[in-house]
Amino acid sequence: MSSGRQDGRRSDQQRDGQRGGRNDRDRDRSAEARPVTLGTPPRLRPGALRVVALGGIGEIGRNMTVYEIDGRLLIVDCGVLFPEDGQPGVDLILPDLRLVEDRLDDIDAVVITHGHEDHIGALPWLLRQRSDLPVLGARFSLALIAAKCKEHRIKPNLRVVTEGERLRTGPWDLQFFAVNHSIPDALAVGIRTQAGTVLHTGDIKLDQLPLDGRLTDLGGFAQLGQEGVDLFCVDSTNAEVPGFVAPERDIGPVLESYIGKATQRVIVASFASHVHRVQQMLDAAHAHGRKVAFVGRSMVRNMQIAQELGLLTVPDGLVRSLDKVLELPPNQVLLISTGSQGEPLSALSRMSRGEHRSVNLEQGDTVILASSMIPGNETSVFTVINELSRVGVTVIHQQTAKVHVSGHASAGELLFLYNAVRPRNVIPVHGEWRHLRAQAKLAVATGVPADRVVLAPNGTVVDLVDGKARAVGQIEVGMVYVDGNAVGDVNETTLSDRLILGEGGFIAITVAIDSHTGRAVASPTIAGRGFSDDPKALDAVVPLVEAELARTEADGITDTHRVAQAVRRVVGRWVGDVYRRRPMIVPTVLAV
Amino acid sequence: MSSGRQDGRRSDQQRDGQRGGRNDRDRDRSAEARPVTLGTPPRLRPGALRVVALGGIGEIGRNMTVYEIDGRLLIVDCGVLFPEDGQPGVDLILPDLRLVEDRLDDIDAVVITHGHEDHIGALPWLLRQRSDLPVLGARFSLALIAAKCKEHRIKPNLRVVTEGERLRTGPWDLQFFAVNHSIPDALAVGIRTQAGTVLHTGDIKLDQLPLDGRLTDLGGFAQLGQEGVDLFCVDSTNAEVPGFVAPERDIGPVLESYIGKATQRVIVASFASHVHRVQQMLDAAHAHGRKVAFVGRSMVRNMQIAQELGLLTVPDGLVRSLDKVLELPPNQVLLISTGSQGEPLSALSRMSRGEHRSVNLEQGDTVILASSMIPGNETSVFTVINELSRVGVTVIHQQTAKVHVSGHASAGELLFLYNAVRPRNVIPVHGEWRHLRAQAKLAVATGVPADRVVLAPNGTVVDLVDGKARAVGQIEVGMVYVDGNAVGDVNETTLSDRLILGEGGFIAITVAIDSHTGRAVASPTIAGRGFSDDPKALDAVVPLVEAELARTEADGITDTHRVAQAVRRVVGRWVGDVYRRRPMIVPTVLAV
Repeated sequence: MSSGRQDGRRSDQQRDGQRGGRNDRDRDRSAEARPVTLGTPPRLRPGALRVVALGGIGEIGRNMTVYEIDGRLLIVDCGVLFPEDGQPGVDLILPDLRLVEDRLDDIDAVVITHGHEDHIGALPWLLRQRSDLPVLGARFSLALIAAKCKEHRIKPNLRVVTEGERLRTGPWDLQFFAVNHSIPDALAVGIRTQAGTVLHTGDIKLDQLPLDGRLTDLGGFAQLGQEGVDLFCVDSTNAEVPGFVAPERDIGPVLESYIGKATQRVIVASFASHVHRVQQMLDAAHAHGRKVAFVGRSMVRNMQIAQELGLLTVPDGLVRSLDKVLELPPNQVLLISTGSQGEPLSALSRMSRGEHRSVNLEQGDTVILASSMIPGNETSVFTVINELSRVGVTVIHQQTAKVHVSGHASAGELLFLYNAVRPRNVIPVHGEWRHLRAQAKLAVATGVPADRVVLAPNGTVVDLVDGKARAVGQIEVGMVYVDGNAVGDVNETTLSDRLILGEGGFIAITVAIDSHTGRAVASPTIAGRGFSDDPKALDAVVPLVEAELARTEADGITDTHRVAQAVRRVVGRWVGDVYRRRPMIVPTVLAV
Repeated sequence: MSSGRQDGRRSDQQRDGQRGGRNDRDRDRSAEARPVTLGTPPRLRPGALRVVALGGIGEIGRNMTVYEIDGRLLIVDCGVLFPEDGQPGVDLILPDLRLVEDRLDDIDAVVITHGHEDHIGALPWLLRQRSDLPVLGARFSLALIAAKCKEHRIKPNLRVVTEGERLRTGPWDLQFFAVNHSIPDALAVGIRTQAGTVLHTGDIKLDQLPLDGRLTDLGGFAQLGQEGVDLFCVDSTNAEVPGFVAPERDIGPVLESYIGKATQRVIVASFASHVHRVQQMLDAAHAHGRKVAFVGRSMVRNMQIAQELGLLTVPDGLVRSLDKVLELPPNQVLLISTGSQGEPLSALSRMSRGEHRSVNLEQGDTVILASSMIPGNETSVFTVINELSRVGVTVIHQQTAKVHVSGHASAGELLFLYNAVRPRNVIPVHGEWRHLRAQAKLAVATGVPADRVVLAPNGTVVDLVDGKARAVGQIEVGMVYVDGNAVGDVNETTLSDRLILGEGGFIAITVAIDSHTGRAVASPTIAGRGFSDDPKALDAVVPLVEAELARTEADGITDTHRVAQAVRRVVGRWVGDVYRRRPMIVPTVLAV
């Protein structure tokens, strides 16, 4: 690899960053080649139904869909998206709430399909603006929302609904259906309106042997389909994956076999809301005479909620505090922990680095990651696995044993859904573009006309008029970044600066000039951070800056901005020539 | 998720960064739980063999092993490692060459097992120090090295060796064995010495139906084993994966079926050194009446070399220039491109964003990623897949079709190797800890005594004395970062600064004080980069800084360093309280 190419790449990334990841050259492409950009949406016809996703389409996360009819709004889900590499320092990404912020009083309800963060995580930011918004959801979902709102010091207006229930609010005739997912109490919602009927699945799969016996209500879907489903908004996450997701109960025997043959401590990590997975861990522990401690704040909290709601069955005396369990012989210990995604601060990561307050893992211990690797987390998960392997801990994970199944329907299951619902129009939701395209193919394969499958990215306005769904316009939706305490002040400029700083650091040059003569009144101060460990790295540029200052003085330049530009140019050229690097150059010129 | 936890995580990452990713608390762990850290190695006994890996153990990349006997050195491979997220702005990572830099004249030869970057990429930095070092390797490997050295303006001393060949250099009696991998002309090397015989596999698999008929020389290994292999250094990459790697020739029919049914342009991306994969693309193109253009500098160069060496068979008139091929109707076009890892500057990434100079992809075109996703690259690969899907390009990739097989032996194949070689001692190489541990298990399962399997991280000194290999010491080896033109000036301080800057940006405060009185002679200048898009974000801290300056002046402080510290404290506290962020605080105090 030549250094020329390396430099090219770095500089390209910087440029990309500076204009938000897109290059504006060569935009003369044929219209067919790119999805059409729609204009301002027309006024919504009386009695017609409008659908706008504010998140979740073209991305996995921040699911939020707004339905509108006759001036009234219904929101389904209000989740967060977790940032990627190109969004450094960002804690969370919210849906762009502007569409509903101006119309808070028009909202009849927020329906929550289930309690995952990508469906409930942004609720506090919505409820801060109108805390009495009715939030409808199943018990477990609302219990998680209640806990979240408490942390945000918000008192929400929660209303429990159950599968099979039908209720009316404003123009919305809602019916809830049990669906099976990787969290208890998930619901789909049927929305009957004057303009037609919507079936919004939320996250869904069709486990035919669910641990709690709570099947996805395919019969209910078929009945609604019989009545006529005009619009089907359906989970696309696994639409690319052929076949069927294996039953969750297949995991139990695998866990049990590893736990059964372990002779020392066993730690199982999984998602803190995956109650059925945890139930199988508890059962395996019980069968093999181990006592259990929950580790990690969200695991402890969620399992307490699940137990209170009767969703988790805990044999008497099985679960104890961590300190109590650690007093037992190693072969009587099972820890159920968060940290399956390799989060650096999680209990499991700390254990892997030998930094956990009370759990010291040793050669011969067993760690089971009963979880997927969420795309983007592979490096951090493998870091944990490698650190554990280094110590001699036996690590079982998804790539070496059947310790995880997905919570989202594969293509085979989705076909069952289409054939039950027989929808007239389809909007693939909950997926990146590759998933949406795969979903569209499935819809067409089951007989949905291709022009009735509407690929509608976030902000696309889809109207259901006379039984036909059509994209009619586009509203502006952006990424709303939460960073620390503040929301919305971190945008593309800040992120592109962070990317440049993170790649190359900066060189700061401070110059004080006489405001009348432009003469430097002190030697320039030059300092780099994130540029080089070599303390003399920047020495050679000082005389060049001094020479430049002599020139600006000779030219009678006293404007600090122009002097700063001249300094930036000299230093930038020097560092490019000598180092082939592109740090941020930060000149400060004081006139004294 | 509470903002408290978010802050905790960010601050932890920063702290981790500042001390190189390790926490020094809680280091009172039992000795068994952590690999023993060895002291300074003893002098090497006359006639004993010493082995030190400078790279490749505990990581995938920068493979380099140094053998020593009676003061003479033999090097096997000299590769680079590609940086991870925690090493921002770094282009390449070299093995720490200090061990050999002081002893360049003691080196008898550098043996190159094959031409992948992680085995040859660091050669220029070694040859810069002694360009006449004899470099031994097979034709294709040396041709790639010659091209690389030309870019670095180095004239290497290359010596072609072939499988079956046996040659002596210094105390080293070398024998080369054909091995099968994902690049032509790969070799294993047997090293007979006075102290015993080593078999160093390089990267290896056991495809029993290789496209070029060049099988891994299992018979030769068995013969050497019969004679007695005292030390076996063996590729661990896929030791965790059960079973066998499917034959490379299984890919051909899959490629052909997709190419056969495509009605528009087809682009296939793969690794630029995977000649056999490319051969199958050419064959499929030929069978379906398509003409081919190579796209991407390394693809063009390597396929030219492969063709010249007779490793790639190109029917007359099949391959043309890109411009010529693009003049053909879409159903007669096949492009073979680099960019399978989603590299942002690659031809394929540019095509996916609609930014390629001459290739505009359209709905209905087909892109096949005939490649793996190297861990850490998933996000960038999926970005390309999603961009292509958005346009309506059909994308085929490893997760949806059988378009890739690994180049590294799975566990089943490794067992064949052990049973052929019957080694007396084993050092698992080429792998992260999880791979090394899995390899160790395989060795033990085939009868190697557990105490003869030496897990020897980079820098561990292993001596083979009286037929037994034992770790006897540890030399210091570090990460050597190449960034732009410079090598070694970017180290942990710079990287941790980049991580902090990349997460939170910086706030720079510039103050000019009277050198005699300490009085501020101008208003402080406060500017943030990578902190906030809000131009007023920092306004509120200005009066706090002014108040602090009044205090330092009142206290008679004129030392610029102390004033800077006071300013840093005030601004740091303020930004933590108000924003819950941790940007770098950069005060500059000029005395004028």
